[in-house]
Amino acid sequence: MIQAPVVNIAEICARKGVENVVLSPGSRCAPLTIAFARHPKLTVRTVSDERAAAFIALGMAQTTGKPTVLVCTSGTAALNYAPAVAEAFFLQVPLLVLTADRPPEWIDQLDGQTIRQQQVYGQHIKLSFDFPVALEHPDAVWHTERMVSEALNEAMAFPAGPVHINVPLREPFYPADGEALQFDTQVKVIEEDANVFDLSPMHSLKLQQEMLFFKRVLIVAGQGNHDPKLLQALQTFMGSTGAVAVGDIISNTQKLAGVVRHQDAILACPDPEKMQSLQPDLLITFGKSVISKSLKLYLRQYKPKAHWHIQPAGQVADTFQSLTRIIRCTPASFFRSMAGSTREDAGYIKAWAGIETKAGKFLKDFTTTAPYSELTAISRVLNSLPHQSNLHLANSMAVRYANILALQPEQDVQVYANRGTSGIDGSTSTTVGCALSSQRITTLLTGDMAFFYDRNGLWHNYLPANLRIVIINNHAGGIFRLIDGPRRQPELEEYFETRQQLDARNTAQDFGLSYTACHSLEELEQALPAFFAPVAGAGILEIFTDSKANAVEFAAYKQALLKAL
Amino acid sequence: MIQAPVVNIAEICARKGVENVVLSPGSRCAPLTIAFARHPKLTVRTVSDERAAAFIALGMAQTTGKPTVLVCTSGTAALNYAPAVAEAFFLQVPLLVLTADRPPEWIDQLDGQTIRQQQVYGQHIKLSFDFPVALEHPDAVWHTERMVSEALNEAMAFPAGPVHINVPLREPFYPADGEALQFDTQVKVIEEDANVFDLSPMHSLKLQQEMLFFKRVLIVAGQGNHDPKLLQALQTFMGSTGAVAVGDIISNTQKLAGVVRHQDAILACPDPEKMQSLQPDLLITFGKSVISKSLKLYLRQYKPKAHWHIQPAGQVADTFQSLTRIIRCTPASFFRSMAGSTREDAGYIKAWAGIETKAGKFLKDFTTTAPYSELTAISRVLNSLPHQSNLHLANSMAVRYANILALQPEQDVQVYANRGTSGIDGSTSTTVGCALSSQRITTLLTGDMAFFYDRNGLWHNYLPANLRIVIINNHAGGIFRLIDGPRRQPELEEYFETRQQLDARNTAQDFGLSYTACHSLEELEQALPAFFAPVAGAGILEIFTDSKANAVEFAAYKQALLKAL
Repeated sequence: MIQAPVVNIAEICARKGVENVVLSPGSRCAPLTIAFARHPKLTVRTVSDERAAAFIALGMAQTTGKPTVLVCTSGTAALNYAPAVAEAFFLQVPLLVLTADRPPEWIDQLDGQTIRQQQVYGQHIKLSFDFPVALEHPDAVWHTERMVSEALNEAMAFPAGPVHINVPLREPFYPADGEALQFDTQVKVIEEDANVFDLSPMHSLKLQQEMLFFKRVLIVAGQGNHDPKLLQALQTFMGSTGAVAVGDIISNTQKLAGVVRHQDAILACPDPEKMQSLQPDLLITFGKSVISKSLKLYLRQYKPKAHWHIQPAGQVADTFQSLTRIIRCTPASFFRSMAGSTREDAGYIKAWAGIETKAGKFLKDFTTTAPYSELTAISRVLNSLPHQSNLHLANSMAVRYANILALQPEQDVQVYANRGTSGIDGSTSTTVGCALSSQRITTLLTGDMAFFYDRNGLWHNYLPANLRIVIINNHAGGIFRLIDGPRRQPELEEYFETRQQLDARNTAQDFGLSYTACHSLEELEQALPAFFAPVAGAGILEIFTDSKANAVEFAAYKQALLKAL
Repeated sequence: MIQAPVVNIAEICARKGVENVVLSPGSRCAPLTIAFARHPKLTVRTVSDERAAAFIALGMAQTTGKPTVLVCTSGTAALNYAPAVAEAFFLQVPLLVLTADRPPEWIDQLDGQTIRQQQVYGQHIKLSFDFPVALEHPDAVWHTERMVSEALNEAMAFPAGPVHINVPLREPFYPADGEALQFDTQVKVIEEDANVFDLSPMHSLKLQQEMLFFKRVLIVAGQGNHDPKLLQALQTFMGSTGAVAVGDIISNTQKLAGVVRHQDAILACPDPEKMQSLQPDLLITFGKSVISKSLKLYLRQYKPKAHWHIQPAGQVADTFQSLTRIIRCTPASFFRSMAGSTREDAGYIKAWAGIETKAGKFLKDFTTTAPYSELTAISRVLNSLPHQSNLHLANSMAVRYANILALQPEQDVQVYANRGTSGIDGSTSTTVGCALSSQRITTLLTGDMAFFYDRNGLWHNYLPANLRIVIINNHAGGIFRLIDGPRRQPELEEYFETRQQLDARNTAQDFGLSYTACHSLEELEQALPAFFAPVAGAGILEIFTDSKANAVEFAAYKQALLKAL
């Protein structure tokens, strides 16, 4: 017999909009496993490696915007969730983490799979709850029902994030033979209607007056999903004020007319006169993190007079060391209300547009003519992405190269990346979670280190046909050869690059994925159309490059870039 | 330039007996990486998956008894250490975990690989330190030197365990070209001379008088390394008092003459009269956890009048719900001092010896004649283990089967298992760490779930020739078919067993290991001598069984056992 309040966790989740549940196997969690597996409205999958399971759940929640439920057994299972929980916390993705536990009297008694699970996610969780172990009293039942609603409300409240309920369970764990579970369709649920977070007319008026002092307004879009309403508001704002917008590839703003996409190339320019011509009076930012190191260093050096950050709620980072005002509303509402509030110096737009055009043309020419390397190979992959598809960019070099190259305005591609913590530990799993919750072709662009680190993201029985994995295999953490410090150390190969011998052929075979290896641009160009064909099914395209040659080619790119700007 | 106090962390570690360092690659940790890599007295290896790296370090520390140092970069790298840190905490293995961090002013500023690292191991760490970020003041230097000594002293103080130093680092991370690191051989070190933890003569006298009230004394040895001095003291105590000792396979007591090794089989006997004849008046326990579920359930039901636990220091578990006294000394000192303190009822020894002999004979006969299954296959493997070798038993079924079968008194095999938290998440890595720190053949006995979960334990450039991996592959978490609850649920195959299709052939090829597959007892018996030959080199022996057939054979074993007892 499984106790009713435990069964009803699944019911409350379903009533509050949860669609996907990712379980990992275990004994202690059996009541939760059975409650979720038998709920008619939930899609339930099981993934054995909890680290991968949690990143898969993250990918699902990020793609659907709805909280994914995670269920694991007691012990270190919960700790294996921790990397994905931290990523979800900083990436603001809603997760409900349910960890089965022994009852409190059995903690620290040397029983198997028993650790100290209360508050186990430390500072990387929005809220942590302890499910009551004695469920006989009606107030305890009220407590459990309230708790599940509260947890899901908190997970979804802006900024979204992970919440944790630790669930101590006593035996029996299983229903008797033939016993059916009863989901209480009348179970208490607390809905939460979210704030509107619009800019008030009075607030808008005040800001409009302040805006008049600034002639050169620069907008930097941080990481965020593609949002047509926001892009429309931005477009109106830019058109009526002459503000310039800059967006990394993970900001999903490539469809915004006139958006600067090549900041990583542009801002590497050492000419102080050119750089001063781009310096803003007012910097307006919204969204999450920025990839471009050039952009960060540039704005920290060429500081604006004021920096406004638009964010409805939650802690705000001072990424550019220039923050002067936090404005609590949605970015779309801000840009709508503030349209026409100032008129910029026309020379400012021209300065950015001129150098952006130059950088775009340079990158196109360079990648067309330069020899085979990671940079040119990735440019081919980006150009071949299917229409209306998803792209997950793994840390660390894949996302950087892609950000240098940028997507084209006509590309209808939604870009994801784990830039909450920027770890290499869950890119494959996160992409699998995305692919499982989307009809679109979903491509992972990854290096060999990130791919093999998270190989267990493929170790389950649910690999979807829309999954495509592109591995740039240089048999090492190639980033360390591209940056100045480690490149010159005798420890480079063993302790920084960490040379590794694997290729993905056996992995593809292990998991029933199609496999194609490429060693030249010709092979790659030939392979891409078939690889991305909708009927191709799940597959791996492995692009072999040489870490030393990549470093030479990347240096050639940087030199040519400086000449071109 | 790397700051001297950071360089000297390596020097203090070397001076205080650290031998092994396991790094994972990263930028932020570069000063630590270079300091450790260049220290002439330390053996430094790099492992890319931090989860595996930490378990490898655990295996080294467990084998050598000396603290292993772990170094990782900032961000989720630290969280990937958490499963091994928790295991080290409960298994009482000394680790010094150094996590590089951004300086405090950059936390929560959306920079890459930045989380909240202070106290990141929560309640699963003995102590957590924050390395100062400003090192200019001489008091700060004194602070750093003191801290490293304090951390290592705490890691080694009984009960040993993991300690954490979070090390925020500002650029520059690298020495200039041609700049040599200066290790300060005069750096301040604080030695700690440990307590002796002997039983005092007065205390001993008092306990000897109490012992006179008990006629039936049962000793249960918990998990512990092979310790000849302890076994000698135990032997003397048993010989002079007539006490009975019981030891699971992880207690490494098989060489103790007369020790009961088949408790898991014996105590499954349903005959209350026989069970009463084994009930102790006084239970004496020492060491860490016990595997045998039969033994735990038996002692919780047939409670002793008194239960003394011998442990020099630290929290004590009441595993059998019968604890009445904690005695603070070493087990060896206790048994030496207490020799001859009582004389047992001779019938008590006889009762245990009779049923132990019967169980031993039954197991030998049964495994010799029963058909191919996990149980019979594992009995062949255990019987073939090389003289003077190490055996790591993975969770969950491998360690249980091995405990049922037990080692023979003549086997000189040191047994390890991650029974601190009993997770399946690090057995392969822990075994690799053991093999790297031992001259002996080191065998991992594992199931397929545990093996593939921790496949990254093989993903580095240091696989030693003395490593042997025996995988019992039933393509599932077979334990769930052997226990009553899940076996009868419709969710068994998908959500409990979690059927998986992998075999290890490709993995062996990926990592350059020899590979042998077995599908019968004949194949297995033929393969074992070559596999265990010292010259064979690192290899995988994969034993394929069928999960359903295993369940049938295990039921047959249990039935035959009941008849035999």
